[in-house]
Amino acid sequence: MSSKEISITDAATVWEPLLRSILEWNPEPEDKDAVVRFVPPPKLFAELKSRLEVGRQNGSPPEFVLETVKFVLRHCVNTSHPLWVNQLYGGVHPLGLAASFLVEKMNTNAHTFEAAPVFVLAEGMVLGEARKLFYEGVERGDGIFAPGGSFANMYGFMAARHVKFPQAKETGFFGLPPLVLFTSEESHYSVSKAAVWMGLGLDNVVKVPTNREGEMRPDALQIAIQEVKASGRVPLAVNATAGTTVLGAFDPLIPISKVCEDEGVWLHVDAAWGGSFIFSPRLRGLHLRGISRADSIAWNAHKMLGAPLQCSLFLSRHEDILRGCNSLGPSSAPYLFQQDKSCYEVAWDGLGDKSFQCGRKADGFKLWLMWVGLGLDGFQTLIESAEDASQYFYSKIAERKEEFLPYLDGPQTTNVFFWYIPPRLRGSARDEEWWSEISKVTVGLKERMVFDGGRLLLGYAPLPYKGLPNALRLVLPAYPPKSTTHMDTILRLITTYGEDL
Amino acid sequence: MSSKEISITDAATVWEPLLRSILEWNPEPEDKDAVVRFVPPPKLFAELKSRLEVGRQNGSPPEFVLETVKFVLRHCVNTSHPLWVNQLYGGVHPLGLAASFLVEKMNTNAHTFEAAPVFVLAEGMVLGEARKLFYEGVERGDGIFAPGGSFANMYGFMAARHVKFPQAKETGFFGLPPLVLFTSEESHYSVSKAAVWMGLGLDNVVKVPTNREGEMRPDALQIAIQEVKASGRVPLAVNATAGTTVLGAFDPLIPISKVCEDEGVWLHVDAAWGGSFIFSPRLRGLHLRGISRADSIAWNAHKMLGAPLQCSLFLSRHEDILRGCNSLGPSSAPYLFQQDKSCYEVAWDGLGDKSFQCGRKADGFKLWLMWVGLGLDGFQTLIESAEDASQYFYSKIAERKEEFLPYLDGPQTTNVFFWYIPPRLRGSARDEEWWSEISKVTVGLKERMVFDGGRLLLGYAPLPYKGLPNALRLVLPAYPPKSTTHMDTILRLITTYGEDL
Repeated sequence: MSSKEISITDAATVWEPLLRSILEWNPEPEDKDAVVRFVPPPKLFAELKSRLEVGRQNGSPPEFVLETVKFVLRHCVNTSHPLWVNQLYGGVHPLGLAASFLVEKMNTNAHTFEAAPVFVLAEGMVLGEARKLFYEGVERGDGIFAPGGSFANMYGFMAARHVKFPQAKETGFFGLPPLVLFTSEESHYSVSKAAVWMGLGLDNVVKVPTNREGEMRPDALQIAIQEVKASGRVPLAVNATAGTTVLGAFDPLIPISKVCEDEGVWLHVDAAWGGSFIFSPRLRGLHLRGISRADSIAWNAHKMLGAPLQCSLFLSRHEDILRGCNSLGPSSAPYLFQQDKSCYEVAWDGLGDKSFQCGRKADGFKLWLMWVGLGLDGFQTLIESAEDASQYFYSKIAERKEEFLPYLDGPQTTNVFFWYIPPRLRGSARDEEWWSEISKVTVGLKERMVFDGGRLLLGYAPLPYKGLPNALRLVLPAYPPKSTTHMDTILRLITTYGEDL
Repeated sequence: MSSKEISITDAATVWEPLLRSILEWNPEPEDKDAVVRFVPPPKLFAELKSRLEVGRQNGSPPEFVLETVKFVLRHCVNTSHPLWVNQLYGGVHPLGLAASFLVEKMNTNAHTFEAAPVFVLAEGMVLGEARKLFYEGVERGDGIFAPGGSFANMYGFMAARHVKFPQAKETGFFGLPPLVLFTSEESHYSVSKAAVWMGLGLDNVVKVPTNREGEMRPDALQIAIQEVKASGRVPLAVNATAGTTVLGAFDPLIPISKVCEDEGVWLHVDAAWGGSFIFSPRLRGLHLRGISRADSIAWNAHKMLGAPLQCSLFLSRHEDILRGCNSLGPSSAPYLFQQDKSCYEVAWDGLGDKSFQCGRKADGFKLWLMWVGLGLDGFQTLIESAEDASQYFYSKIAERKEEFLPYLDGPQTTNVFFWYIPPRLRGSARDEEWWSEISKVTVGLKERMVFDGGRLLLGYAPLPYKGLPNALRLVLPAYPPKSTTHMDTILRLITTYGEDL
């Protein structure tokens, strides 16, 4: 049987070995510690190209596809490895993965109850649970799942626009005074990308200065807003960040919300990374205090929490705001939102009309099933163990002052930004040349991580706004859980790779 | 063991029964013919809510999760059923599903080679293959995967904006003359939604009239463009549709492209539904002639072709256009796009910067693996069999003139828009009241489909622009393949349900 003739009914049998090999967690036990088995891009490209050439015209038999899948699995980065601490996402919790498989298999769109009854209801339910957490018991309001944090932020800015200038839905921006977004210099670049896509323009994004820790300065925000007003432009929204990408800083939400209230500006909180701290009664008081004052919130459950990519929530305390922003009325798509439907109340079908996309993956179900299985307690345990691991890591590098130099006096939640000092640079004067060498050592460390068996992937970055050269950036998604042994291994690998750099 | 304690390593064992139940194609053989087992929204909501309540605080054991998954599977709509002909997507090909599972398991972002080496390369490769097809051998150009057709269309309008007014990236639309999008009255509502999000406004969307078949009239387009120019507004882009949502109409691309050339306007083709005809040498000549003249194209491989949702390609013949539109420069995210990286050439990491989202699902891999396994021949077979099924269906209703009334003289590719006439209305004068009754019969048919064992889901819609009342809309995604038996079953069910309506 060729792969062309395989029907849906015999798929489970025919593809059994293929599905097995995907489900096996360690397909190559002899090499299971690798985070990446590096192949240079041109070489990997050539190998993949030759496989496509085999099947390009006439297809290829299941055995060849199986062998190709095994090749692919071997050369994917293992983001589920505890030493993948390279990005703000990582392993996927088995419950989330099972939910993903279910969503993939059912292959439907979260636009109407008719097409996706369970998924549409589960999405509404889990958005309600999230609102109760972020907005302190408030059940009403609005929300939707977006295909990533960039779009979740954009939903927030669109909501701000709709409240300030509802006529822009009809007229566009032509003839309006320039509208301005405020965000910190450390915030995510999706704020600027949104300004480009929304027709605001980069000139109308004001980057507010931060303090040493990378937190937006409320005094500077207030001045910036007043300057914009004085110039005849109109403040549209403030984007505060709860967990910045590099330093893991949390903008002070209470003073920022006061500035927003005083100045009459929408407050959106980009909590894509740090929003998961909501599950820890202890840590949410430290990091997320005041978030309930936000007009809208973006939170990526696929980052720290270990939900499968994508799982991005947009939340607002304003009821029915999304329909106002995005709906063209059900009559704009009468083939989908039939208003004379007699099987059930048509109001249950409104989801597609209030989204930008109409058709969407049923991402909400993944968080719903994780919630059923893990509960608030399970989420809390995951999040707090990530915080514990970063505290442990920080305490270890703080002890070894000769070898390590953290930028801040403590971890910024689950981010640690630090330099490694190789033996040849210890004890020297920390002048410009010394810093230049440290910056190169950081790049060299990355190279060794990749080339020496790929046993660790940990990112590095400069911090241009602070004038800081390349430093290592440890980030700890909560899944898979990180132990003190993992932290010790990271330190050992860095010092081994760096000894002669 | 509670679900909280399950680690990634023992997931395969613990969740084995759960994964099994998801992979089984017919979990309930006694009832395997159901497309939907309908439960009214409030009742289903209550059942799902009670399950969430069980685990809400402390989580729930694997057995309860398994039982919940089985409940969910039972109440999902089976979009893989051949009698799910309700939307422009349907079943997912087993190869695509296997690729989805792999992508879900590897849980990474298609933003850099470092994070997703295989996926980033496979995406580029499959976009190149698609460009060669749509642009008749042209390999260069640009492309990206978008989270759905709405965003793929928006990429096209952003590209048009960038070419016409590159300064808008910095200044926004303030101070510019109004920019106008042209699209047919039958086109997808994502064009209007894009105008809202992009700051153009609904007033700046011109709906061009169509002919009886639902195809945009090139003469009307030319007049509309000239009127806009005369009014001092600036034509930005024409959106032509290859496969409209209701009638399945293909706008005539050659005359439209000539108008666009003459008037200096960007031509974007929304081929979300009809783009898959590119795989049939016979049908692409009929339906997609001239598509190579498009400046940009959106195509959803998850619609007719049976790739898993989402699998939306944006293609352009303009090289490097996406970086121009969307990039803020690699220095905007130096933690991700390190320019001094020494492991490999940094150019391989540019994907995130040229996308709007930065982080994205690796949707491209799904199409890549399907291509390896099925090849061009396999895709062709799938697409042509869908066309054959609609031809067969049309011929059957055309024969039975008493019972059925098709709107057009033949199927519009894989869409058939038609009315069923119950016995009581046969032979009567077709006056206003008669049409009003037919419209209600159509709604009644839908209700019976849902309530009578849910053995068929087929949509209905009015066509307001043509002043047409509710009609049945048959749409045939190519996977799972549709046989003449399926078509006969659809006709039999309609006549059975409708006999006494």
